[in-house]
Amino acid sequence: MKYPPVHYHGYLGLDPLLSSQHRKSEEYGKPAHDEMLFIITHQAYELWFKQVLFELDSVLEIFKKSKVAETDMGLMSARLERSVAILKMIIGHVDILETMTPLDFLDFRDMLYPASGFQSFQWRLLETKLGLRMDDRLSYNQAPFYKSLNESQQAEMQNVLSQPSLYDAVEKWLERTPFLQGENFNFWDSYKQAVATMFQEDMETVKNNTRLSEEDKKKNLEGLQAALKSFDALFDETAFEQLRKEGQFRLSYKGMHAALLIQIYRDQPALQTPFRIIRALLDIDETMTTWRYRHALMAMRMLGQKIGTGGSTGHKYLADATAKHKIFGDFFNLTTFFIPRSKVPPLPQSMADRMNFHY
Amino acid sequence: MKYPPVHYHGYLGLDPLLSSQHRKSEEYGKPAHDEMLFIITHQAYELWFKQVLFELDSVLEIFKKSKVAETDMGLMSARLERSVAILKMIIGHVDILETMTPLDFLDFRDMLYPASGFQSFQWRLLETKLGLRMDDRLSYNQAPFYKSLNESQQAEMQNVLSQPSLYDAVEKWLERTPFLQGENFNFWDSYKQAVATMFQEDMETVKNNTRLSEEDKKKNLEGLQAALKSFDALFDETAFEQLRKEGQFRLSYKGMHAALLIQIYRDQPALQTPFRIIRALLDIDETMTTWRYRHALMAMRMLGQKIGTGGSTGHKYLADATAKHKIFGDFFNLTTFFIPRSKVPPLPQSMADRMNFHY
Amino acid sequence: MKYPPVHYHGYLGLDPLLSSQHRKSEEYGKPAHDEMLFIITHQAYELWFKQVLFELDSVLEIFKKSKVAETDMGLMSARLERSVAILKMIIGHVDILETMTPLDFLDFRDMLYPASGFQSFQWRLLETKLGLRMDDRLSYNQAPFYKSLNESQQAEMQNVLSQPSLYDAVEKWLERTPFLQGENFNFWDSYKQAVATMFQEDMETVKNNTRLSEEDKKKNLEGLQAALKSFDALFDETAFEQLRKEGQFRLSYKGMHAALLIQIYRDQPALQTPFRIIRALLDIDETMTTWRYRHALMAMRMLGQKIGTGGSTGHKYLADATAKHKIFGDFFNLTTFFIPRSKVPPLPQSMADRMNFHY
Amino acid sequence: MKYPPVHYHGYLGLDPLLSSQHRKSEEYGKPAHDEMLFIITHQAYELWFKQVLFELDSVLEIFKKSKVAETDMGLMSARLERSVAILKMIIGHVDILETMTPLDFLDFRDMLYPASGFQSFQWRLLETKLGLRMDDRLSYNQAPFYKSLNESQQAEMQNVLSQPSLYDAVEKWLERTPFLQGENFNFWDSYKQAVATMFQEDMETVKNNTRLSEEDKKKNLEGLQAALKSFDALFDETAFEQLRKEGQFRLSYKGMHAALLIQIYRDQPALQTPFRIIRALLDIDETMTTWRYRHALMAMRMLGQKIGTGGSTGHKYLADATAKHKIFGDFFNLTTFFIPRSKVPPLPQSMADRMNFHY
Repeated sequence: MKYPPVHYHGYLGLDPLLSSQHRKSEEYGKPAHDEMLFIITHQAYELWFKQVLFELDSVLEIFKKSKVAETDMGLMSARLERSVAILKMIIGHVDILETMTPLDFLDFRDMLYPASGFQSFQWRLLETKLGLRMDDRLSYNQAPFYKSLNESQQAEMQNVLSQPSLYDAVEKWLERTPFLQGENFNFWDSYKQAVATMFQEDMETVKNNTRLSEEDKKKNLEGLQAALKSFDALFDETAFEQLRKEGQFRLSYKGMHAALLIQIYRDQPALQTPFRIIRALLDIDETMTTWRYRHALMAMRMLGQKIGTGGSTGHKYLADATAKHKIFGDFFNLTTFFIPRSKVPPLPQSMADRMNFHY
Repeated sequence: MKYPPVHYHGYLGLDPLLSSQHRKSEEYGKPAHDEMLFIITHQAYELWFKQVLFELDSVLEIFKKSKVAETDMGLMSARLERSVAILKMIIGHVDILETMTPLDFLDFRDMLYPASGFQSFQWRLLETKLGLRMDDRLSYNQAPFYKSLNESQQAEMQNVLSQPSLYDAVEKWLERTPFLQGENFNFWDSYKQAVATMFQEDMETVKNNTRLSEEDKKKNLEGLQAALKSFDALFDETAFEQLRKEGQFRLSYKGMHAALLIQIYRDQPALQTPFRIIRALLDIDETMTTWRYRHALMAMRMLGQKIGTGGSTGHKYLADATAKHKIFGDFFNLTTFFIPRSKVPPLPQSMADRMNFHY
Repeated sequence: MKYPPVHYHGYLGLDPLLSSQHRKSEEYGKPAHDEMLFIITHQAYELWFKQVLFELDSVLEIFKKSKVAETDMGLMSARLERSVAILKMIIGHVDILETMTPLDFLDFRDMLYPASGFQSFQWRLLETKLGLRMDDRLSYNQAPFYKSLNESQQAEMQNVLSQPSLYDAVEKWLERTPFLQGENFNFWDSYKQAVATMFQEDMETVKNNTRLSEEDKKKNLEGLQAALKSFDALFDETAFEQLRKEGQFRLSYKGMHAALLIQIYRDQPALQTPFRIIRALLDIDETMTTWRYRHALMAMRMLGQKIGTGGSTGHKYLADATAKHKIFGDFFNLTTFFIPRSKVPPLPQSMADRMNFHY
Repeated sequence: MKYPPVHYHGYLGLDPLLSSQHRKSEEYGKPAHDEMLFIITHQAYELWFKQVLFELDSVLEIFKKSKVAETDMGLMSARLERSVAILKMIIGHVDILETMTPLDFLDFRDMLYPASGFQSFQWRLLETKLGLRMDDRLSYNQAPFYKSLNESQQAEMQNVLSQPSLYDAVEKWLERTPFLQGENFNFWDSYKQAVATMFQEDMETVKNNTRLSEEDKKKNLEGLQAALKSFDALFDETAFEQLRKEGQFRLSYKGMHAALLIQIYRDQPALQTPFRIIRALLDIDETMTTWRYRHALMAMRMLGQKIGTGGSTGHKYLADATAKHKIFGDFFNLTTFFIPRSKVPPLPQSMADRMNFHY
């Protein structure tokens, strides 16, 4: 009525969409039935990658602002969680693709050389926009991965690399957290104190434990000392910066503190949605890792010891990328520094008030 | 080496594929973020529909032959099972689409009028190729559904309707089953006898059951009589044809027998793959039914009591289609006539031999 | 160290757990392999029902308070979302159970009479705690469902029925919403005005649409009038209460307003988590409905036209329950009264401030 | 009627089942809400492990026979495929368990020490029954894993280890394959010939390829020579046995041949179900590997760098086990030796006849 009538078929662009499946095997006169599945599965991946990129772009747009509006937080959390849902869902596409057997793949595998999933520009963009840097990447056939990209893709990738990634924007956002310091409250001091007390108590418990032999006591106490020492990375800025230089941490010192605060005090109204956002980022990382791993397993199953269509030992590459291409690894590492909720210092009322509504 | 080099991007037709997302809301200058999800989810559906059609076409091609080669059976079973796997997987797309809230949908819903999922030509083709006839369909806004198709689609649909569907081909294949009759063996007689004996025994059990009052005995015996009588539909060809005329059955009398034989003796080597095929057809029916139902629920959630974009009361239509658009319903009904394996008459050796290998 | 050592096996109670599978078919000397799957699938259901009940109980505990602490909102939302995740996951158990064929089921089906999934006390508790009232239930074999419960279960059910359900508690919580009315702001007035304006504009658009014939204009205008009139249920308290008495609505007038406010202004910080909670409740309803439906389909497949083990025509019952046992149906209906975000009246600053943080 | 009446609650043993959840945190007076999820998720795992063991036991029973009846093949394939479906489904439990955050886990983690998922006896049984030998296992805290088992479990494990595993039984079954040799047909000779021809043709193609420089030709030819040489492992029994001794292969020489034959000629009626069985075994392996990997990721997320409750560096262990605990790895490796279907030598009619039905 208000708008010109729309038809399903044209609206969805089904003509270009459904005429973009060209089997090489058919072109060469040896039609391989399962090549269709191969094409469509990968096309489905790429459609969903576009969607996830679309979500991430919108989130990045908001996060990049010098001040993130509280009214945008729910939106961002919802879009990140949608991205997680999509990524989880497409892991299941592997099960579909594996209904093609290795023998069926052989019917057209040679015809695709040297095409390879490594060449998915959108997946690379996804990694880069999330925050994967060039140096974090495994080299791909001894050449930077972007050699596999065409010129306009390389230009776009360079552009993306030159701009803040989601990782960068999140780090900046964390560093601006207004709750690390307040009247009668210094998060860091109070947390440090809580950790010290906790270990003190644990050591007392060991010392007074009559069930333990002297040797066991000694061993236990040494273990606690070592654990306590591992907190130095957190409490000693110089030590932290050293480890960061060595690549053990990526997040800034202040960013670490803020991330920890959000985790520990996530029940506070002002931290409920930030907590969800951090969790969604972790989920994205973990899900992409799982996705890579499932593909590594599938590659091994499809190719045995043969070299991948991309000329690399596919599954080896994927298995390594699985481990290395994590972006928000510090959020995982942070867990090491959690203390049980019962040991968490309560917030002073003035700070609790700042984190709450006053309607 | 043997073939010209291929690149991932071009091979998958990513240029047309990834430039086919045109948000109406953007065109009208009121970009609605979630319209992208709406488009891509439906595009993903259509990609997978194409794949399922591709599988069904290949299966239909084989089934239509006057004699199905035994060497093709495994292939057909695998392709039907793949279709089931795909259909099950895309049901999960509803969960993704539902990350869009009804309020977000409102932002662009009016712009799509009167486009509607009812207009998916491929879904219609899928139903038709499986065996849904025009008269089985619920009318759609009081006009035959193909009014929503464009001319070339209508022509293709007419063509498909004029050719044997998978249902038709399966029925013919069933009727040719060579195992219904053999030396010393008539499946129908022996099955009829087994049913009679079973009910006879059940009635004796009731009569001799001292725990039952006379009244309970009478009630139980009447129940058994009624159950036995329901088998008349199966054993009396005239009665069966009458019920068939009334729409209670669709499958031919001989087809029913063969389907029953396959179910009952599915462990016989020659019936193992036929059994899998029948099960896959049941799975396709059940999964498509579930797909329709999930969409009915989603429509209700998205639209409340409002009329669908297609102008119909969407969820009502879908809920009805859910029940009516079943194709292999007779395979479901057949269950009524199963008897426990312990009561199934053993095959005479000559028939068992015919169903087995002799290497 | 601090606590006595624990072993996996004992901790999880694996002795009782793994010795609770007693096949009737084995007891009667006719072991049916698939009865094990039947038992274990249902046991897995019951384990997860216990978990969902545990989550709901904890949420109900919080919701029942005369004032829900803002620091508890994130927790509640997480626990409801976990319940949704569990319910979605166990729908997939149907796929597992369906690897048992109807013929395999026949091997032990008679031995279970009259046991039936209808007798799952925990599922009934779940429905009741969510808010399903006795009168909402379909009668079960013409007798109230609790006839199938044992005495202590009946007592517990009575007790649960006599206490506020999650539905009741949510309704009370909604009614207390502090944002319906404020300085320079009355949600209801402003919403009513926005609706009137929207329809006014739509009618103008129709009248000025030169593409439309006079007849089409008339039809369109009548349609708009009818749509506008449907809002009366919302705007006229007397009309609403009348419809409520007739069973068209369950939620109180004020509860409806609050639910609408939360949906419409969900981006406001104070409404972000309430919105998630309402969405999770909708998800629970929709998922339980889907669960029932999948079981109805499975029952039909397993039993054909035969009566269920519980003596009812199983799938008919389930299909009906599917539609009727919805609890938060008003949240679905509410969608009817949504207006596009662009038409939503902006909040006056004073109200926006009340819904925001001030750190 | 025939059998005493049965009630859902008692039949499923719900009293012991639903009273086996004892939270340590409750026992110690510090109830941690999420410990319930932790318990129930692991109990659900164990229930399903019992089911998978039940299926494997029944399959092993059949496979162990000196001659596997053809009428049992469909059954075995169905039960293995059911096991795959179950294992795939429970991987999804990780998503449920991850709704518990690391901080929530800390509330009761210390109370469980040193309980650990490594102590799951059923999972160990599962691995062992499939064919994992003691020496294939990663050592667990420098002590054989069965130190974590109680006495009766150790006895049962020893017993299982002393009997043929599914791996052993499948190997024997493969070695008995009647189709490796026949009138005018020796699978091995014909396959070797086909491989030689294929490589010969490939080399000719390279030599005649005018697009290639001399250097590229040389490189390509060397690559082909190397690939051809890798087939020596298959064609030269002495070389194969040497590699087998070094642990590169586990399957016997004849077993390898049979497995290859089944893969290559899987369309032959007599090989359709054997092929499904081999595929299901591969699926079990791959799914268990994925299960381990998802748990490794989860452990890393839950524990950060902390040591696992079992005292090992949990995720490291799991990541390694992921790679090493594969049982049917040779079926994966076999893929290396596949040749495209177009190069596969056709069967002589006499052999094709032996693999077909003659009804």
